[in-house]
Amino acid sequence: MYDYSLKKPELEVCPSPVLLPFYNVNKSVVVIIDVLRATSTIAAALYNGASSVIPVATVEKCIEVGAKENALTAGERDGSIAPGLDHGNSPLEYPKEFIADQTLVLTTTNGTRLLHKAIGAKAIVTGSFPNISALCTYLLQQDQPVILACAGWKDRINTEDTLFAGAVVNRIRDAFEVNCDSSLIAESLYLQYKTNLMDLIKISSHYKRLGRLGIQKDIDYCLSSDIAPALPFYKNGRLSNIL
Amino acid sequence: MYDYSLKKPELEVCPSPVLLPFYNVNKSVVVIIDVLRATSTIAAALYNGASSVIPVATVEKCIEVGAKENALTAGERDGSIAPGLDHGNSPLEYPKEFIADQTLVLTTTNGTRLLHKAIGAKAIVTGSFPNISALCTYLLQQDQPVILACAGWKDRINTEDTLFAGAVVNRIRDAFEVNCDSSLIAESLYLQYKTNLMDLIKISSHYKRLGRLGIQKDIDYCLSSDIAPALPFYKNGRLSNIL
Repeated sequence: MYDYSLKKPELEVCPSPVLLPFYNVNKSVVVIIDVLRATSTIAAALYNGASSVIPVATVEKCIEVGAKENALTAGERDGSIAPGLDHGNSPLEYPKEFIADQTLVLTTTNGTRLLHKAIGAKAIVTGSFPNISALCTYLLQQDQPVILACAGWKDRINTEDTLFAGAVVNRIRDAFEVNCDSSLIAESLYLQYKTNLMDLIKISSHYKRLGRLGIQKDIDYCLSSDIAPALPFYKNGRLSNIL
Repeated sequence: MYDYSLKKPELEVCPSPVLLPFYNVNKSVVVIIDVLRATSTIAAALYNGASSVIPVATVEKCIEVGAKENALTAGERDGSIAPGLDHGNSPLEYPKEFIADQTLVLTTTNGTRLLHKAIGAKAIVTGSFPNISALCTYLLQQDQPVILACAGWKDRINTEDTLFAGAVVNRIRDAFEVNCDSSLIAESLYLQYKTNLMDLIKISSHYKRLGRLGIQKDIDYCLSSDIAPALPFYKNGRLSNIL
């Protein structure tokens, strides 16, 4: 039970990594959101038993850390597995029988850059539709200010991350102060498309870029609520499931 | 008539001044949007016959330029006329009998900062609901890429500027390529609130900050379409009506 007579913590949406310096990161729990596909894949891998996921910014770093940690390496560039790495960015590549007890080193451009900007936060977790309920339960339990931080695309805003942020705002807003216009805009987007998220994704820039590469199954996974109910928590350079 | 068989120019929304460097300003017409209240007041003053409006960033600069130009000075800080200036930021302060043939030096924080970042664009104009049709007609005539640039609030996104950008996207999208997720998000916001813009403004951060200062009449003006059909065009440091 929450005592709503007390002052509620703030809930804010940061729609682009470039805007994060204008938010009070140090006093907040920061949720890293990169729906297509990094934070969906992270939820999938950890839910399916990966011991941890190490996010890195470059292919070179991925190879280096993979060797040091005796870990699987994964990452794509232009829609194909990057030269020197073992696996791709699809959440469907990481079923239990493959990933259980393994460490995965994952290189993603937008998500990792955002995550590094959030260092110093009270806590850093990741979110996407596959772990939305686990995430919301965690955020409600913390009783701390929350920043829903969208990875976007090359520092610009994208629809899928804003959509997910809006879904979270819509679920947990009663327990928070929502004085942030980005939160209202994100929630408005979610409310307009909640009965068919794919309608929005199909007109979005990411879909136009990647639709031709046959990632429809990936997108279906990334938009499916609660099919990978993990809670990826960042500490000392790696994400582990704290559920 | 537009020949839609030709490649259409791009239409994009930049929701915060901080994001403008990620847009191709030099190849575009940039629309400066600061609905509450700078670009509404600029439209009002120019429609009512002001010879020009000179936007400046600081009170000191406003006083200096006002003296040099023998011009009216205007600007507010914390909701009151700034010490040393003559007038406030309300569009209602600039009726024809007062402002005709005068030069107005206007200091606004968010709008002016954004405008200076847009220098180098093919053209810079300003927009708000009071001049929305004049603006859209102009943009359709140019056949150039367009960036709808929102001033926001202290570099963060706000609802009223995003709402206006969405209204413009909704009106002119058929003549443009719209591949920008910010445009989709802004248009979605507009579509949800177009029958009652005030419903959105009332839950927005700006209204919560300024509502207590009795600016309801100002807001009504700033949300009224086509009551000041000017087209403020920026050249050599000043905005003039080119209609």
